Amino acid sequence: MAKPLTRADVTEMIVAAKIQKGLTWKEVAAKIGKSVEWSTAALLGQMQMTKEQAEAAGELFDLPQEAVKLLQVVPYKGSLPATPPTDPLIYRFYELVMVYGTTFKELIHEEFGDGIMSAIDFEMKLERLPDPKGDRVKITMSGKYLPYKSY
Amino acid sequence: MAKPLTRADVTEMIVAAKIQKGLTWKEVAAKIGKSVEWSTAALLGQMQMTKEQAEAAGELFDLPQEAVKLLQVVPYKGSLPATPPTDPLIYRFYELVMVYGTTFKELIHEEFGDGIMSAIDFEMKLERLPDPKGDRVKITMSGKYLPYKSY
Amino acid sequence: MAKPLTRADVTEMIVAAKIQKGLTWKEVAAKIGKSVEWSTAALLGQMQMTKEQAEAAGELFDLPQEAVKLLQVVPYKGSLPATPPTDPLIYRFYELVMVYGTTFKELIHEEFGDGIMSAIDFEMKLERLPDPKGDRVKITMSGKYLPYKSY
Amino acid sequence: MAKPLTRADVTEMIVAAKIQKGLTWKEVAAKIGKSVEWSTAALLGQMQMTKEQAEAAGELFDLPQEAVKLLQVVPYKGSLPATPPTDPLIYRFYELVMVYGTTFKELIHEEFGDGIMSAIDFEMKLERLPDPKGDRVKITMSGKYLPYKSY
Amino acid sequence: MAKPLTRADVTEMIVAAKIQKGLTWKEVAAKIGKSVEWSTAALLGQMQMTKEQAEAAGELFDLPQEAVKLLQVVPYKGSLPATPPTDPLIYRFYELVMVYGTTFKELIHEEFGDGIMSAIDFEMKLERLPDPKGDRVKITMSGKYLPYKSY
Amino acid sequence: MAKPLTRADVTEMIVAAKIQKGLTWKEVAAKIGKSVEWSTAALLGQMQMTKEQAEAAGELFDLPQEAVKLLQVVPYKGSLPATPPTDPLIYRFYELVMVYGTTFKELIHEEFGDGIMSAIDFEMKLERLPDPKGDRVKITMSGKYLPYKSY
Amino acid sequence: MAKPLTRADVTEMIVAAKIQKGLTWKEVAAKIGKSVEWSTAALLGQMQMTKEQAEAAGELFDLPQEAVKLLQVVPYKGSLPATPPTDPLIYRFYELVMVYGTTFKELIHEEFGDGIMSAIDFEMKLERLPDPKGDRVKITMSGKYLPYKSY
Amino acid sequence: MAKPLTRADVTEMIVAAKIQKGLTWKEVAAKIGKSVEWSTAALLGQMQMTKEQAEAAGELFDLPQEAVKLLQVVPYKGSLPATPPTDPLIYRFYELVMVYGTTFKELIHEEFGDGIMSAIDFEMKLERLPDPKGDRVKITMSGKYLPYKSY
Amino acid sequence: MAKPLTRADVTEMIVAAKIQKGLTWKEVAAKIGKSVEWSTAALLGQMQMTKEQAEAAGELFDLPQEAVKLLQVVPYKGSLPATPPTDPLIYRFYELVMVYGTTFKELIHEEFGDGIMSAIDFEMKLERLPDPKGDRVKITMSGKYLPYKSY
Amino acid sequence: MAKPLTRADVTEMIVAAKIQKGLTWKEVAAKIGKSVEWSTAALLGQMQMTKEQAEAAGELFDLPQEAVKLLQVVPYKGSLPATPPTDPLIYRFYELVMVYGTTFKELIHEEFGDGIMSAIDFEMKLERLPDPKGDRVKITMSGKYLPYKSY
Repeated sequence: MAKPLTRADVTEMIVAAKIQKGLTWKEVAAKIGKSVEWSTAALLGQMQMTKEQAEAAGELFDLPQEAVKLLQVVPYKGSLPATPPTDPLIYRFYELVMVYGTTFKELIHEEFGDGIMSAIDFEMKLERLPDPKGDRVKITMSGKYLPYKSY
Repeated sequence: MAKPLTRADVTEMIVAAKIQKGLTWKEVAAKIGKSVEWSTAALLGQMQMTKEQAEAAGELFDLPQEAVKLLQVVPYKGSLPATPPTDPLIYRFYELVMVYGTTFKELIHEEFGDGIMSAIDFEMKLERLPDPKGDRVKITMSGKYLPYKSY
Repeated sequence: MAKPLTRADVTEMIVAAKIQKGLTWKEVAAKIGKSVEWSTAALLGQMQMTKEQAEAAGELFDLPQEAVKLLQVVPYKGSLPATPPTDPLIYRFYELVMVYGTTFKELIHEEFGDGIMSAIDFEMKLERLPDPKGDRVKITMSGKYLPYKSY
Repeated sequence: MAKPLTRADVTEMIVAAKIQKGLTWKEVAAKIGKSVEWSTAALLGQMQMTKEQAEAAGELFDLPQEAVKLLQVVPYKGSLPATPPTDPLIYRFYELVMVYGTTFKELIHEEFGDGIMSAIDFEMKLERLPDPKGDRVKITMSGKYLPYKSY
Repeated sequence: MAKPLTRADVTEMIVAAKIQKGLTWKEVAAKIGKSVEWSTAALLGQMQMTKEQAEAAGELFDLPQEAVKLLQVVPYKGSLPATPPTDPLIYRFYELVMVYGTTFKELIHEEFGDGIMSAIDFEMKLERLPDPKGDRVKITMSGKYLPYKSY
Repeated sequence: MAKPLTRADVTEMIVAAKIQKGLTWKEVAAKIGKSVEWSTAALLGQMQMTKEQAEAAGELFDLPQEAVKLLQVVPYKGSLPATPPTDPLIYRFYELVMVYGTTFKELIHEEFGDGIMSAIDFEMKLERLPDPKGDRVKITMSGKYLPYKSY
Repeated sequence: MAKPLTRADVTEMIVAAKIQKGLTWKEVAAKIGKSVEWSTAALLGQMQMTKEQAEAAGELFDLPQEAVKLLQVVPYKGSLPATPPTDPLIYRFYELVMVYGTTFKELIHEEFGDGIMSAIDFEMKLERLPDPKGDRVKITMSGKYLPYKSY
Repeated sequence: MAKPLTRADVTEMIVAAKIQKGLTWKEVAAKIGKSVEWSTAALLGQMQMTKEQAEAAGELFDLPQEAVKLLQVVPYKGSLPATPPTDPLIYRFYELVMVYGTTFKELIHEEFGDGIMSAIDFEMKLERLPDPKGDRVKITMSGKYLPYKSY
Repeated sequence: MAKPLTRADVTEMIVAAKIQKGLTWKEVAAKIGKSVEWSTAALLGQMQMTKEQAEAAGELFDLPQEAVKLLQVVPYKGSLPATPPTDPLIYRFYELVMVYGTTFKELIHEEFGDGIMSAIDFEMKLERLPDPKGDRVKITMSGKYLPYKSY
Repeated sequence: MAKPLTRADVTEMIVAAKIQKGLTWKEVAAKIGKSVEWSTAALLGQMQMTKEQAEAAGELFDLPQEAVKLLQVVPYKGSLPATPPTDPLIYRFYELVMVYGTTFKELIHEEFGDGIMSAIDFEMKLERLPDPKGDRVKITMSGKYLPYKSY
């Protein structure tokens, strides 16, 4: 009996096909019809796709029909093989949480009161910022403020 | 023999004095003369201050002279008591790294090649984004792109 | 120089005073004017109190003025000395997450789609359920559903 | 020699078949003849089924005979690939244990004395609570109180 | 302001007083009026005492009145400084769980079905078993069987 | 080249065959000619068998000749997939070590002096204890006392 | 459906082919046209290669075309199976970080101010240092100094 | 009874005194009469000093006589409060071990055979390397090669 | 109320007094009347002393009467502040267990059958082995073989 | 494409072949021409073999030619599946490090000064020590003393 396909297998198939076909995430997102940030997260196994999005992905990456169905299911989220992440690029983001974590906390509480920035009702944008001293990565995040309530 | 003062003690003194005096980080930053984001991080033990900045802080928070000197020394960085952070606000940022970590990696590599976004040559801004469906927290980060080089 | 008071110290003072004075959480909540569930969580260092609530707590537990101020500040949340929790009562809740975690996930996604039950816009009630075979603990939780959105 | 089938394999087969066949847990539970909460937990590898329940599941999901036998055996429980769980939905429950753990402890002890809420003689119900400000997830748990005894 | 006394402090005071006064746990248990196994666990901070038991302990160990009150409160349980335990005597019990854990599981399930041996409705007895090849430690445990129920 | 068979594979084969053939550990132990406790532990990969015992097991479970040889080799012991164990039945034993660990230590030292209860020169018996309030699991352990010696 | 090839598979294929063909890293680096330090790191899955470098590697190690494409993609970095590393040679480097970590920190801050030595804009050289008392390993590292900036 | 002074206390006293007196490690090393790298490591609690060196340190930092004696004792080594280190500067060294660990291993084995670079018979030098594109940190390490031997 | 003295405090007092008085472990052991290996372990908090041994230690190190009593109590064993140990000398022993662990297992089983080398009925001797290529540390351990028994 | 053979695979093949052929390590070592301690460690994947030794092993265990080549390569060392080791025999050695770790440290420093016992320039011998009270395992270790040097 063949081992059933999992979402993790689908992510691996997508990553492999993208490399072998020489596609870029921008081209992929254009076909999916959503932002490049969201589309990449979805194809890396972090978001649920609609039927249309999944079928577009299936065509682009030559995925079997079962894989197309799996893309329409809410995945078990978390994209890192281990934490703290060993990859230097991803570790820098982890480091930012360690160094600026209490600063985020103080400033959000000062501005909004007790509550959090949602990581669910959330979106982000990643851009290149040209700079004569060396180009910069610019990331803009926006998450809904959710207050704690007493009852 | 009295136990010598450490930077962690100074952070604790600053946090306590700020609460007892009813100061805001914005008022504090205005006195320090830098952005509220950087000033808060520095006063929470994550950045080295100049003599002038440290003295302004000393005055604001009634710090002893030794504490003012400690603010001028590079601290041992890392602001969280444990990881994964148990505090819900800070955990949401940690979760973003876990969910979007591989997306950050793919998009930065696609745009820039092999390298990282610096967490050192870095700045960030935290704002309130008014929204009829509930205000949002907006965070803008910018870090220099640093390429890996072959040799 | 005396070590400044922290919220953890205040929690310890409250717990000690409650025992020495023979108070119950129900009596305490009545004085605070909120539900016993929220009041207990707040006094155990997990919620921010208003000035009136904090002053009522200060009077009940003979807290110094600094402690009353600390109760009005958003705390660094997380109430357990270690995880997995060694205490059998608390461990049972941890075990429920391990045994029913994927069941919660499947059923919430089936009913609502991709998203989560908020642990912020959340409330809970704990009651005794009389039962001839032995009374039961009944816990009712309600948290707002927050959908993931594509963008 | 073929590797023998395990309960974890059966869980994976069930999850895959459910997606490919487009079944819902509610439909499945109706066939099993038990609540949707218990049926889902059982099919995700956390409960032992009777012969009839296992055969109904076998038919629904086209399971081989060995799998049907495995469903009738007490499984090695624990449904999460790792803790703390990386999936945001499941993490929120884990966070509730961290934030409200000591509150649960205090209130159960105040009401009942030294003892625990059983996670074995336990049941739970998950419902949608319509709310004009956004629907809510309602979870009702009930576990038998078990007292510690001196001897 | 003096740091309030905790149950952990009381355990430490009891252990120290027992050593300095040269008492044995058997003598102590006789005064408490319960078995030596339960009394020792209670005095080591794992069980809640009645007023009478706590006062008897207070007299034996010259405890202050606050400590006597703390003995009557349900403690945060878990007696080991770290796990796996570094102490060889305690480690042997941990090793038994690792080596015989699945055996306990198989045999209890075979005899009783799906369920557990309660660690709450539980008692144990520790005896010396004379043996010409070297005396043995005999431990008899008994815990109520609790079945999982479908619903 | 086929992957060589390991003792872990043999344990998995035995567990699977036992379920598919509907055998009980009691029937198995009767064929092996040892107590049900020891036989179960041995067949779950924790003890070395003699040639006769291994051959009896091979016949009962239709094991290949290599598996029969592996049963006669001392295994790498430790039966749990992870610690703390996620399975509720096994966790209760782990909890007993955490709650009663220091009690075991104090009482064994009081009775015997500095030393340990051997987990090697050890045996145990698991029985059902009928009880009108609900049957109980009774476990009797006996391990040789081994004293530390000065030299 | 065949499991897609990953970069980790390619590393394993390279290591195996190098051993079976009896090549040295020096010979390999000469073919790649870069330093032996960088080439080895790249072939062990830590650096991105150009098309020419990847094709040279493909030829040397008889790699399939997919593997050659994978060598041109930025890998998920981190070369150790676990940390702390169990291998004695690699552990010694880990030990150097533990013993000299604060020394590196103090001396770099004294010379440069607040900032770090880049591990990205970095190169290293490993040489044999003949010594009559036993030859020595000499490692020369150079990384760009990156200052923290206030803003 | 006063708590006896430990080497960790002495490190803390030295670090505090150095800051309050405005000394540099270079000035300190000149007084100790050894390289700045070794002197800093020794004063940060990683090396044993001679009587002369310890007395010179005592004078410089106004240490009490007990502290001077403690500097002459071999310390319990390891300078980091936790690993992985949260401080960005020290983490970069840790990252180098993770990224280049297997490269160090391959190249040392290729050049020398089976063995290690000693971290005991070891020395290192830290310098500023002027560079028009930004100055660099140069670290030169040399450790004796120690071969594994068969016997 | 003064915090009661613990065995860990006594170990710290002994270590401090030994350094300040310039004693050697050999001199100490001679006064205790046991081997230097056992005496050192006992004084570092790993063994129980007799009244005579404890009083001899009390005199040598000027210990208060409570400390002398604590030396006669079985300690909670385990001498390392953390594992894996950060100290290079102690780590080498840990490394030996990792590298030679399975070798010890195979050879003891080959020679003796299923069982262990006792770490309780155990003694060891540490000597200097003069060697023209550099002196060596020689450690001789002997532990009773304890067989597993079937029952 | 077949997965390339690794040294771990070779270790598994050797262990399996040894059991199926009924060889002892003593017989194997005699064929290899080195001590049984070293030969066992090498064949369990911890040492590099010469061509002659590897070929002798290949013949004894019917290894394929690739495996014989892998035996001549320095392995990634570390023989335990997890630490702390769950196997009781190996754990006893781990316990010895925890209990006697600081004793080893004190006695080696007293005899030799600051430095370590090498785990590389190291050999050991394992013998049976007949004893009327039960035979003993005797292990003799010898490692070169390596001094730390100031510079």
